[in-house]
Amino acid sequence: MGTQLHEIDFTDLSNNSLDLFTISNVNIGSKWLWIHFSAVYIVTIFICYQLYNEYKYISSERIAYFYSSKPQPHQFTILVRGIPVSVCSSVSESVETFFTEFHPTTYLSHMVVHRTSKLRNLINEAKTLSKRLLHLQSEPSQHTYRHIGLFGQRVDLVDHYGKKLVDIEQSVRLEQSNVSLAEETRAAFVSFKSRYGAAIAFHLPQSTNPTQWVTEQAPEPDDVYWPFFSSSFMRTWISKLVVIVACILLTILFLIPVVVVQGLTNLSQLETWLPFLKSILTITFFGQVITGYLPNLILQLFLKIVPPIMEFLSSIQGYISHSDIEKSACKKVLWFTIWNIFFATVFSGSVLSKVSIFLEPKNIPAKLAVAVPAQFINVYMPKYETAGKFWPIVHNSMIFSLVLMHAIAIGIFTLKKLSIASTLLFPLPVLTLLFNAYCRKRFLPIFIAYPAEVLIKKDKEEASVPAMAEFYDKLVTAYRDPALMPIQYSVNSESLNRPLMSSADF
Amino acid sequence: MGTQLHEIDFTDLSNNSLDLFTISNVNIGSKWLWIHFSAVYIVTIFICYQLYNEYKYISSERIAYFYSSKPQPHQFTILVRGIPVSVCSSVSESVETFFTEFHPTTYLSHMVVHRTSKLRNLINEAKTLSKRLLHLQSEPSQHTYRHIGLFGQRVDLVDHYGKKLVDIEQSVRLEQSNVSLAEETRAAFVSFKSRYGAAIAFHLPQSTNPTQWVTEQAPEPDDVYWPFFSSSFMRTWISKLVVIVACILLTILFLIPVVVVQGLTNLSQLETWLPFLKSILTITFFGQVITGYLPNLILQLFLKIVPPIMEFLSSIQGYISHSDIEKSACKKVLWFTIWNIFFATVFSGSVLSKVSIFLEPKNIPAKLAVAVPAQFINVYMPKYETAGKFWPIVHNSMIFSLVLMHAIAIGIFTLKKLSIASTLLFPLPVLTLLFNAYCRKRFLPIFIAYPAEVLIKKDKEEASVPAMAEFYDKLVTAYRDPALMPIQYSVNSESLNRPLMSSADF
Repeated sequence: MGTQLHEIDFTDLSNNSLDLFTISNVNIGSKWLWIHFSAVYIVTIFICYQLYNEYKYISSERIAYFYSSKPQPHQFTILVRGIPVSVCSSVSESVETFFTEFHPTTYLSHMVVHRTSKLRNLINEAKTLSKRLLHLQSEPSQHTYRHIGLFGQRVDLVDHYGKKLVDIEQSVRLEQSNVSLAEETRAAFVSFKSRYGAAIAFHLPQSTNPTQWVTEQAPEPDDVYWPFFSSSFMRTWISKLVVIVACILLTILFLIPVVVVQGLTNLSQLETWLPFLKSILTITFFGQVITGYLPNLILQLFLKIVPPIMEFLSSIQGYISHSDIEKSACKKVLWFTIWNIFFATVFSGSVLSKVSIFLEPKNIPAKLAVAVPAQFINVYMPKYETAGKFWPIVHNSMIFSLVLMHAIAIGIFTLKKLSIASTLLFPLPVLTLLFNAYCRKRFLPIFIAYPAEVLIKKDKEEASVPAMAEFYDKLVTAYRDPALMPIQYSVNSESLNRPLMSSADF
Repeated sequence: MGTQLHEIDFTDLSNNSLDLFTISNVNIGSKWLWIHFSAVYIVTIFICYQLYNEYKYISSERIAYFYSSKPQPHQFTILVRGIPVSVCSSVSESVETFFTEFHPTTYLSHMVVHRTSKLRNLINEAKTLSKRLLHLQSEPSQHTYRHIGLFGQRVDLVDHYGKKLVDIEQSVRLEQSNVSLAEETRAAFVSFKSRYGAAIAFHLPQSTNPTQWVTEQAPEPDDVYWPFFSSSFMRTWISKLVVIVACILLTILFLIPVVVVQGLTNLSQLETWLPFLKSILTITFFGQVITGYLPNLILQLFLKIVPPIMEFLSSIQGYISHSDIEKSACKKVLWFTIWNIFFATVFSGSVLSKVSIFLEPKNIPAKLAVAVPAQFINVYMPKYETAGKFWPIVHNSMIFSLVLMHAIAIGIFTLKKLSIASTLLFPLPVLTLLFNAYCRKRFLPIFIAYPAEVLIKKDKEEASVPAMAEFYDKLVTAYRDPALMPIQYSVNSESLNRPLMSSADF
């Protein structure tokens, strides 16, 4: 279930509504401006009505999806961070003691998270090698030989890679069996016998020290982002602060290319700054390239770099799932785009160009609509299932666009000396924000956590299903770090290259 | 347990630290300013250290208080608002069905809240009458007669009041027996068999519609504020918005007396505005009265009106307990005072007087310390027990004062042309706010709700205590509206005034 449930094309809506403001030809103080005034009210009411229906529909769909879903590990599991350890007990023992004492009837099992970056590197190396081997083996005609080593021995590459792969796999196995207590992080996935049991442990503050036993909902097992698994409260908190500062810096530093672009689009300004260009710029072709094509190119290039940077920043911010990282990166890019494309362009321009940009705001929603999902839509569907959790971002963006539209409308009516209209518009953004506040109260909680009513009903429904015993067995190992799973990439190569051993099997 | 646990006199501390800024005599750019600079750092570090210790101490005391407390009704009870009703069921039935279905093992009983404003008026009338009667009876020599009615009958007042009281009591009893289903509000106090059970129902969202079955912690039975018992989500939400607007309006309108006062303290300004006063103001006595005494009088008079207004606004905001109303009113008065005494005075003055006020900020904490508690402190101790819940307000005010001190220091160093010092001070407010953010994460949750660990331990401790059965019996009726309790004020008057009836008893 994505965010595209009801097919309302909000981009189109906004475009139409904002087209109303290309009213530069309307005379100052003209009575016709009242048509634009009423259009603002009508469009706002219509969009709010649609947004309310959509929010209502998606939240009911979210509940319906939950009711119809099969039991899934993440519904029964929470992630616990900041686990306190004493000298005499390991993290695992600490978790066991705590949950058997305070959640005796619902606690099922737990899985402590280990530091496995070294292992992960080895496994990646093995993967790359096995791919290369497969490629070589699939085309036997290309069996290549290479001179390797100090004395330039001639070696069959398939043989060479095969041996190397076996070596890596052995060190992976060694490393896996050695993942010691020292490499335990102070975080664990804790599974419960019921969804309601997991919800209780998630919602209630657990410890007298609120920075210990910090609980959050577990993501789907495949959605877990293992690499940066910060487990202590302080580390998570500090990295979050660092990321916020980095984001602000990036947004500010990005003003440099924006200002350059702004300068390029303004031919006369460019001539004032760089007078030696004057002769070139008079040639129509160069003028067109520099003011039309070049600014776009520069901006597009810089904009291409932003999403990966934002995703990287989100990944070190302490999120534990790919979906959360992408949701956070999505928000970051959204605000970055709004700030830079709109505000920064406005503020860095001259007074005259300001007005002209105010009169062309129809580009903004379109640009946002293209730029933001472009930085995730391809990878969105297959990887995980958020059950509509992205919808509130869409809703908030629409509300922001509406308030922006009101601000622009008030500005225009003031410019066109129709001050009664701009005064009468003032209640509109206030009412829109109140509408949004109501929606946050009415619908948002459903997107944060499922209510007790739903959880208990679902639990009861499945209490007597025989398949649950089998599910619990799977649940116990569902959150095992994939780096700790047994690997075997060398099967093919071994069977191909060691015929003597296979004949010994007969 | 109040907020005065560790006897640190913060007002004194702030006064001392801010005294450092009465440095108008220090030469511009003088090296001695660095002593003030280091003082700002030392004072900030010292106060933050003390605040951390105090927060830690008070939160541990809060937990200790909870462990040592006897079972109290409010620990086992939650308030539920926004109860949905169907045509065929009452609020009471709806509550019973919901909690027996979703909290079958922990649900104990419930008490629906009724609209009893009419009853409360009658009871108040009876109370007043009985007091008057008692007063008359205690001084029999003063038995007075009065002419009452159209024909001026001569009536014994004791007799007259006695009869009236009996009448009122009868109509109270009639009203009490008639409190019908129609007067049920959509709110109820729901009691549980354990503290943990109540906590689960409070922390977990209950319904698929987040505006229904809205739960909150119940106050102590004596602390419940019965009069304004708004029960529906929408009414509570709207009244909250209205109160916020009213508060802002009051704060803005209060600028009028502040500006008047500001004018009075400035003699030369006054002479410019009202030139006919010039001759009077030259007389020293009148000048002193008008610039010294009058402004203070006006300001004090207006400031006296503010706390009752704020308390009234808080009472209609939807809070359900006296303690919450007073906590909210306390915050309102605090911000009102900060805004008006400090900022408004600064902004409404001339540029020169701005500086002089900046140089006398030592008055502000002192004024706050006097004006705010004037903290309500008399009614605070006996009425209810918040177990240290007021501490976070004190903590936040201290942090605000610190940041204000930094702002003032930066301003002064800039004025005194020691720009390195003001630059080097910039990290201090940031670090102070980060310290505050950490404290919010580390301690604040303990002041909002008790953690599962504590609740379960306390529940287990008392599971085998035989007195609990008796406590549960009391718990069932603990949250009955006092207006629905049987009343009897007329006993004394009856026995005194109706000797014939008492003789018939023999």
